[in-house]
Amino acid sequence: MSSTYGKILKIATFGESHGVGIGVVLEGCPAGIDFDEAFIQSELDRRKPGQSRITTQRKEADEFEVMSGIFEGKTTGTPIALIIRNQDQRSKDYSHIATQYRPSHADYTYQAKYGTRDYRGGGRSSARETAARVAAGAVAKMILKKVGVQVQAYVSQVGKMKLEKDYQQLQLENAEANAVRWPEPETAQGVFDYIDQVRKEGDSIGGVVSCIITGSPVGLGEPVFDKLHAELGKAMLSINAVKGFEYGSGFAGVEMRGSEHNDAFFTDENGKVHTRTNHSGGVQGGISNGEDIYFRVAFKPVATIMQNQESLNEAGETVTVQGKGRHDPCVVPRAVPIVEAMAALVMADFYLRHQASRV
Amino acid sequence: MSSTYGKILKIATFGESHGVGIGVVLEGCPAGIDFDEAFIQSELDRRKPGQSRITTQRKEADEFEVMSGIFEGKTTGTPIALIIRNQDQRSKDYSHIATQYRPSHADYTYQAKYGTRDYRGGGRSSARETAARVAAGAVAKMILKKVGVQVQAYVSQVGKMKLEKDYQQLQLENAEANAVRWPEPETAQGVFDYIDQVRKEGDSIGGVVSCIITGSPVGLGEPVFDKLHAELGKAMLSINAVKGFEYGSGFAGVEMRGSEHNDAFFTDENGKVHTRTNHSGGVQGGISNGEDIYFRVAFKPVATIMQNQESLNEAGETVTVQGKGRHDPCVVPRAVPIVEAMAALVMADFYLRHQASRV
Amino acid sequence: MSSTYGKILKIATFGESHGVGIGVVLEGCPAGIDFDEAFIQSELDRRKPGQSRITTQRKEADEFEVMSGIFEGKTTGTPIALIIRNQDQRSKDYSHIATQYRPSHADYTYQAKYGTRDYRGGGRSSARETAARVAAGAVAKMILKKVGVQVQAYVSQVGKMKLEKDYQQLQLENAEANAVRWPEPETAQGVFDYIDQVRKEGDSIGGVVSCIITGSPVGLGEPVFDKLHAELGKAMLSINAVKGFEYGSGFAGVEMRGSEHNDAFFTDENGKVHTRTNHSGGVQGGISNGEDIYFRVAFKPVATIMQNQESLNEAGETVTVQGKGRHDPCVVPRAVPIVEAMAALVMADFYLRHQASRV
Amino acid sequence: MSSTYGKILKIATFGESHGVGIGVVLEGCPAGIDFDEAFIQSELDRRKPGQSRITTQRKEADEFEVMSGIFEGKTTGTPIALIIRNQDQRSKDYSHIATQYRPSHADYTYQAKYGTRDYRGGGRSSARETAARVAAGAVAKMILKKVGVQVQAYVSQVGKMKLEKDYQQLQLENAEANAVRWPEPETAQGVFDYIDQVRKEGDSIGGVVSCIITGSPVGLGEPVFDKLHAELGKAMLSINAVKGFEYGSGFAGVEMRGSEHNDAFFTDENGKVHTRTNHSGGVQGGISNGEDIYFRVAFKPVATIMQNQESLNEAGETVTVQGKGRHDPCVVPRAVPIVEAMAALVMADFYLRHQASRV
Repeated sequence: MSSTYGKILKIATFGESHGVGIGVVLEGCPAGIDFDEAFIQSELDRRKPGQSRITTQRKEADEFEVMSGIFEGKTTGTPIALIIRNQDQRSKDYSHIATQYRPSHADYTYQAKYGTRDYRGGGRSSARETAARVAAGAVAKMILKKVGVQVQAYVSQVGKMKLEKDYQQLQLENAEANAVRWPEPETAQGVFDYIDQVRKEGDSIGGVVSCIITGSPVGLGEPVFDKLHAELGKAMLSINAVKGFEYGSGFAGVEMRGSEHNDAFFTDENGKVHTRTNHSGGVQGGISNGEDIYFRVAFKPVATIMQNQESLNEAGETVTVQGKGRHDPCVVPRAVPIVEAMAALVMADFYLRHQASRV
Repeated sequence: MSSTYGKILKIATFGESHGVGIGVVLEGCPAGIDFDEAFIQSELDRRKPGQSRITTQRKEADEFEVMSGIFEGKTTGTPIALIIRNQDQRSKDYSHIATQYRPSHADYTYQAKYGTRDYRGGGRSSARETAARVAAGAVAKMILKKVGVQVQAYVSQVGKMKLEKDYQQLQLENAEANAVRWPEPETAQGVFDYIDQVRKEGDSIGGVVSCIITGSPVGLGEPVFDKLHAELGKAMLSINAVKGFEYGSGFAGVEMRGSEHNDAFFTDENGKVHTRTNHSGGVQGGISNGEDIYFRVAFKPVATIMQNQESLNEAGETVTVQGKGRHDPCVVPRAVPIVEAMAALVMADFYLRHQASRV
Repeated sequence: MSSTYGKILKIATFGESHGVGIGVVLEGCPAGIDFDEAFIQSELDRRKPGQSRITTQRKEADEFEVMSGIFEGKTTGTPIALIIRNQDQRSKDYSHIATQYRPSHADYTYQAKYGTRDYRGGGRSSARETAARVAAGAVAKMILKKVGVQVQAYVSQVGKMKLEKDYQQLQLENAEANAVRWPEPETAQGVFDYIDQVRKEGDSIGGVVSCIITGSPVGLGEPVFDKLHAELGKAMLSINAVKGFEYGSGFAGVEMRGSEHNDAFFTDENGKVHTRTNHSGGVQGGISNGEDIYFRVAFKPVATIMQNQESLNEAGETVTVQGKGRHDPCVVPRAVPIVEAMAALVMADFYLRHQASRV
Repeated sequence: MSSTYGKILKIATFGESHGVGIGVVLEGCPAGIDFDEAFIQSELDRRKPGQSRITTQRKEADEFEVMSGIFEGKTTGTPIALIIRNQDQRSKDYSHIATQYRPSHADYTYQAKYGTRDYRGGGRSSARETAARVAAGAVAKMILKKVGVQVQAYVSQVGKMKLEKDYQQLQLENAEANAVRWPEPETAQGVFDYIDQVRKEGDSIGGVVSCIITGSPVGLGEPVFDKLHAELGKAMLSINAVKGFEYGSGFAGVEMRGSEHNDAFFTDENGKVHTRTNHSGGVQGGISNGEDIYFRVAFKPVATIMQNQESLNEAGETVTVQGKGRHDPCVVPRAVPIVEAMAALVMADFYLRHQASRV
């Protein structure tokens, strides 16, 4: 199983939902970066379970230990290993599905591919793995901070409830003020109540996370296959439950004319090149053009629901999968820091790669 | 500039729109595959310009030469190099934009990243590069044919005109019977006429290509980062003009409940595992589950239009980019074989990788 | 800093000599391999310090913890993370060299490359990192065991003292019966005494480790750049203190005629192809031919000596580096399991890659 | 078959000895490098056959065509494709060995691994492939020239005839003045005569190529696995007929004491750090230290000889392989530019990678 990502700034994650723990090794981080452990913890806290009654009630402090790569408070350029031990495992909760294939989970495909699987909480296929990504992404954010790049995500849709405003019309920092991570204060409670209602019905619902990257220098991205948006897309699609990705005008751009879609260039008072519109989403020809990079990520409703479902066991017999355990009725509030983490890793990797493109 | 793609079955493409030619080196192709040159040519013919009045009138036969990797009609396991010489270059057509940045093209970002660019027809950023992908994809299809996997794409949307039927309700082979590659005969002419109208207005329009992969064995894809759909997504997003990717339920899945979205397992009369619905799009946990794999790819309207546009030159001065030259008013008809080629390369690569996952 | 190795079976190591600990994440291990923890520990014990008075007296139990990848005693195909905590660090032993560059160590080059370094015991450049390789190599050996491949190394030279016999004339298991790992019982004590004498003089001495791989199937290795012996060479040269690598006839082959060097083919009574001689070292055209693979690895004398040496500090001033601390007077006895580990990782990776070369 | 090499500056070679031609795609070359076609040709001329009576008499002009990557005399940052057509193929010369396994060639292993092979002149396993490396290496030298790094190789041993002087005592440019590439004028003719005598006897002989890299900045190389010397070693071992690699003190260093081997640091009049001796070979801890990098590469006697040899055919029957065709009695004179090319590619790649290690 391939679990590495990145080319220069590269991560290798490991760990199962109900094993000893999870972690990540991050290589290629430049030396001399101020290593902010409290920031990593705060990022993990944004992702961790039990934040409100609309997230899973599993209790994980998600405290991490730094195994390597830091000396006297700074990165040394050597691999940074971070580990997080699992605490609230309750593996016995899963004995009833040891030989069952939960619908729309990875039970069947893992069993078919590997001939075995760790059935406890989904094992490696659990979204618990993403805590390791968030920890690594926090380090990527430290690198980006040094070069003036910011990554900020928020929930822009839950079920049929959509944020009508563009990101420019919102105060994105408001997203962190509520459990949904919804940046519009006046509608946030309604969305929360909707998710809570879905939860009470033992069901789940999908959503969309939007992400904005500001301050990117011109020139990041590597045509032709490693286009900036292609790599961002892969990074997002590698997150559990993601079904779609679009950037700039996205699927809506399909309905536009070229004369309407093209972004006219102009220079600002400082002679800096800009575009009057930004349907390109900050990327042209796979390379950042200095405008805001923005994209949207579609998440399906979580497969774990509190309802009985028809399925199969390993013997191919029809069984009823019982709805019990702990789960998120809607994954997007906790997905926000994961989206940011993956975006930060992609951006920091391309920043470093870009440095290798000139002599 | 990174121009390689794939892990075991790997391609390296090269070439500029108005240089000597383009080509591809494909490594990792198993030995003993029947090498069907006529098939490669037929795939290139599906992509080549000048197919009808709704595609660019550039004249390129796109005939290829096999430089290596084949002996006595079969692959030998060594790298296969294919080259295609450019014929109808008309580089002087581009002298008027030698120092201009065409809106929503890659002129500005290439110049900023590399400090130079081959401005003739977009140089490396031209979609001409995709002919090399189609040639390589044809070889990937030969590999897949041997193991029973088929890849078929078609146009499912142009502007606001959408195909209302699902792929199961259509005869997909009908797509190749018209210049739009629209699989519904009764509406195809209307879409053609619409694109032709856009062309006459000197404008362009976006579209969607849908793709279906049938016959996939269970087990392809590599969690956690190289999930099957994540790699398909990157491959599609690396194609010129693509703005979005979704698979299975996609963005529409966001609005569904888990109880509705989950795909129930059952066994057919042969004991083979199937799902009653396929919102998963044939992929669960990043691994193929044996059901049809399907996805949609959003293309923006082509940036080249026959209208004058405001822009900048390299000196930062405001200029008018003149609308002249040859272009496609809508890219999706010719994008169909490109989507198939990239999908075939991803599937064949994962097929080979899967063989390396067991001992 | 790049710390990953391998293509399908891939390792990422981390950790510093006097940090929290070291470890490794191994991805691409097939599922279903019996996971033998006692064997891993026994391999670590072969490398650990303090084995005899001719090895460093640092006290490290080198006990490891399995963080992931194992379920019910078998590998699951997911990444296997192993961590080893440092115990006997004595960082203050290194305060005297905090700003000094020890001759022929990596102090100066790390400082120059990264602008900083963890000076405690050499930090990341310490051979302590190789414990992580040995742990990963033990897993690779488990894979190879399943397919009948064995890797065995031994010390064949210390200073000017050379083993005169070929490996075929020796009982290689005798190597593990003495502290030098010298497979000739009648001369082993003499070599031990020589190393001990060097130690008493506060000096160090070089040596050679020879390695034999038996049972390899025909066909491993990937021309043209990833030739089997090229990858073995890189793997060996990546071990601390290695200065040279040769396989088969090696440097001695330079003096031979082709008529003498060529290995004639014949078939044995079972129809299996063999060669009458094996100057090829079991590899032809970069691919294993089924004969024994053998190679030799040259190690320089350890740079740490118990003598005062002239050097520079970070300010560029002349200083005297004092000879104190703990060290190995000769690195090769402890290098034997490291050589085996890297060879096992290369062989197992190529075994898996080979499976991906046919369809 | 994997035929790519490098991480940032990456090459993909292709082609068979008696196919249409050979070539290389080089990606990651920075933009703005003066592209000197005459220099590439002069490098190819150093490697091409037919230079004197001690090289094979095959007639190949080795003229190349630039397919892409260059605009107005400079590199553009896009992939550079170079192709060389085969001319003097005489495939029928090989019909007698179509089903035979030539001793110590790659016939048997290719057949076993791939189930087929192009038997004409060894197909892909032929050293003809190295012409593509030399062409790519010439581009790497152009990059290195811009940053002040030089790579120079020469023949230092043929059979038992060894150059007694160190490289510092020689005028290395003298090597190019004779057909052996032997830098000591007074002994060059004797070595030439010896090789010619071996040729007349229908036999072949091995040799050693030494290589010196001057002007390297401090800091190139990537611990822990991609150490500078480890990558140089792999690059050299990937060249046809290479059996060994050593750098700095190499195998001779095994016999030295640490007190003798350690290189004392000092600063020169400009405050630049140097070492008094250079047993380290310019590399410490896997990173260049600014001193000359030097290494030696052992080549076996060429397997093709003009004598009849016992062998097997594909059916496993004993056959006599006849000694006829064209061959080099000693490979090292033509190997000199190949060694330089691979060394230049490694150095340029690490130069670019180093730029990505700081922010």
